[in-house]
Amino acid sequence: MAADLQPGPMIDSVEKSEPDRQLRVQWNDGSEFSYPYVWLRDNCLCPSCYHAQGKQRLLTMAELDIDVQPSTISMSTDRKGVTVDWSDGHQSTFSTDWMVQLHKSSFVDGAKEKTSRHVWGSELQGNIPTFAFEDLLKNDAILLEWLETLRDTGLVVTNKMPLCIGQVKLLGDRIGYLRQTTFGFDFPIKSRYDDNHVAYSGKALPLHTDLPHFKYTPGTLMLHCVKQCSGKGGESHFSDGFNAAYQLRDEDPEAFEVLSNTPIDFIDIGYDTFQFYTKYGRPVFSFDYKGNLERIHYNNGTRDMRLRVPQDKVYKLYKALKAYDDILNRPTNKISYRMAEGDMVTFDNLRVLHGRGEFELGVSGERHLDCGFVDWDCINSKIRVLREQLGMSFHEY
Amino acid sequence: MAADLQPGPMIDSVEKSEPDRQLRVQWNDGSEFSYPYVWLRDNCLCPSCYHAQGKQRLLTMAELDIDVQPSTISMSTDRKGVTVDWSDGHQSTFSTDWMVQLHKSSFVDGAKEKTSRHVWGSELQGNIPTFAFEDLLKNDAILLEWLETLRDTGLVVTNKMPLCIGQVKLLGDRIGYLRQTTFGFDFPIKSRYDDNHVAYSGKALPLHTDLPHFKYTPGTLMLHCVKQCSGKGGESHFSDGFNAAYQLRDEDPEAFEVLSNTPIDFIDIGYDTFQFYTKYGRPVFSFDYKGNLERIHYNNGTRDMRLRVPQDKVYKLYKALKAYDDILNRPTNKISYRMAEGDMVTFDNLRVLHGRGEFELGVSGERHLDCGFVDWDCINSKIRVLREQLGMSFHEY
Repeated sequence: MAADLQPGPMIDSVEKSEPDRQLRVQWNDGSEFSYPYVWLRDNCLCPSCYHAQGKQRLLTMAELDIDVQPSTISMSTDRKGVTVDWSDGHQSTFSTDWMVQLHKSSFVDGAKEKTSRHVWGSELQGNIPTFAFEDLLKNDAILLEWLETLRDTGLVVTNKMPLCIGQVKLLGDRIGYLRQTTFGFDFPIKSRYDDNHVAYSGKALPLHTDLPHFKYTPGTLMLHCVKQCSGKGGESHFSDGFNAAYQLRDEDPEAFEVLSNTPIDFIDIGYDTFQFYTKYGRPVFSFDYKGNLERIHYNNGTRDMRLRVPQDKVYKLYKALKAYDDILNRPTNKISYRMAEGDMVTFDNLRVLHGRGEFELGVSGERHLDCGFVDWDCINSKIRVLREQLGMSFHEY
Repeated sequence: MAADLQPGPMIDSVEKSEPDRQLRVQWNDGSEFSYPYVWLRDNCLCPSCYHAQGKQRLLTMAELDIDVQPSTISMSTDRKGVTVDWSDGHQSTFSTDWMVQLHKSSFVDGAKEKTSRHVWGSELQGNIPTFAFEDLLKNDAILLEWLETLRDTGLVVTNKMPLCIGQVKLLGDRIGYLRQTTFGFDFPIKSRYDDNHVAYSGKALPLHTDLPHFKYTPGTLMLHCVKQCSGKGGESHFSDGFNAAYQLRDEDPEAFEVLSNTPIDFIDIGYDTFQFYTKYGRPVFSFDYKGNLERIHYNNGTRDMRLRVPQDKVYKLYKALKAYDDILNRPTNKISYRMAEGDMVTFDNLRVLHGRGEFELGVSGERHLDCGFVDWDCINSKIRVLREQLGMSFHEY
């Protein structure tokens, strides 16, 4: 009998633990686990408390009695379920499968989360993780590896791409969708003599993040090289902004503090898909609610002329900006990669800074990158969907 | 002579102030202002330092000498410009117009910014700012007023809209663009018997913000009533989440702390325009780098079953959630508005919580809202563009 061959978790005993308002369960593998009453009641899966198809809680916070207690508890005869009659008159039944699955992924201390992100320096030179474009489109396991590498390393190269526009959009659609901005969905960076933006010239671009003048700066950027410049130059530069920030914190704590607490405004005024006047200010280093470094916003070209610091603090601000810029550009931190035609670089725009070397506008035609943004919401959603489809476990926030 | 009639600002004298590394200017109106050397050099507007058409700084942080000093300073004969020869060998010329404009909007202490946002309670019942749709499409001044009201009050009603879909998209395009999500650009909320989401049922929806399971939660939400339910119910509810948060901070500081520091995960798994598994966690209250309340994320329906707190802190978390929910729903804080067909409500989705009353799925057909999101980057950009076009001053971050 299959049920006997794969019995799954079973309960040995279940009892109330009044002092801490929890249901204490002894499992048949010898382990013990406690479930807070209010949490169990909140997560009743009956049709009046939970919308199974929409996977949404119907029980409102107004209806929930946070002091709810079990009046009676009964274990099912097969020891694979618990039924609780609650003090609010409701009855809930919980399966052992649900109880085990949920306790394994709940009640962890929020401060103890792990990240698989790893910072890097020049050791990545010549070692940027590289994937073939066709594999990303056709193979879910390889696409997943690409997405997780992008998340953890913050930089991936994709090669063997067709030499035409639309490939960035194709990959964006495979992940979810491209993030629209004032520049549209996918957009060209083409060198031209009548440039109206530094990106369209042959000038060098120092290390920067894109669109820091957005409150919602796009999470990742894809640059697909449809045509490379014919002469020398035009190589892409990268530096891990987190790596440099940690070094700054160690070497010059005062500068780190300045860049953590002083708002820098970035600004972009112009006309592309429509007329815009985009501006946003925050410190170069942004932190999450636990104080962990979360985002870098830094772009010297679009840094606003106006400063939101009194004059006597201006020098210290420039000193801090320069100290960070210096570290980003150290040979031990910076790498370069000259895209061949058909290559694409993709990177975490909230962490990895990018730039490019100067090049000459050649007679044989213009350098042309096809570009697009994808947000982390899209990427993380796709990672979960793929891991689930491929039968792989996942547990990340 | 026009130049004499409107002379603009002129300089009486200019000199170096060595101790604080600033250029001190006496203006002909009797005022005095000092400009830090490094800031002036950083903002040189010559063609090799600044890309005028792209409005971008070409001078890199690596090239900037933060200890730069003027070697000679000369005032133009018309007293409307200053030329500085710098210690790095460069020469810059600054016009008095630029110098005055920039000093009026720079060197303010970042901590002293003002906001025109005003919180509200039930006094807004019957007084929600209301605009006619056609005016928004045709009149720039009225559109600007609508956008600024949305920013400051967080809630506006628009009426006299055509009873067909596409109007949300039309207004979104007029502002900039609709924010794409897993639900597409504009999307219907239609009541139906085979609902796969609580929003599509006739059930009441308690006060919530939309899409807290996104890291980048959309900034504003537009709900256009194409068809209202034929019977009773279906009214929209609103509560100012900032107002309720400030009340919670005063009345129950411990609960405010819990909701400021405990991550709550929200989750959405399903298929709409594509298959998704969206999840994100952060405290209900998010703060900016200065510690000011910045965003509210709260949705009891999509709150994840899993909790990122150890069991002994679970009760306190529910207690805090319930305390906030109670305050949101107080008659003194909550307002309701039953949309007529052709009405649209638009609100700040990072501040104002919305919900709806229960209704019966009538025989005469389904309730139908056409919905879309617009991000604050788009709105704030449009506000600046319109103010500039209308010749109105603006200075906000």
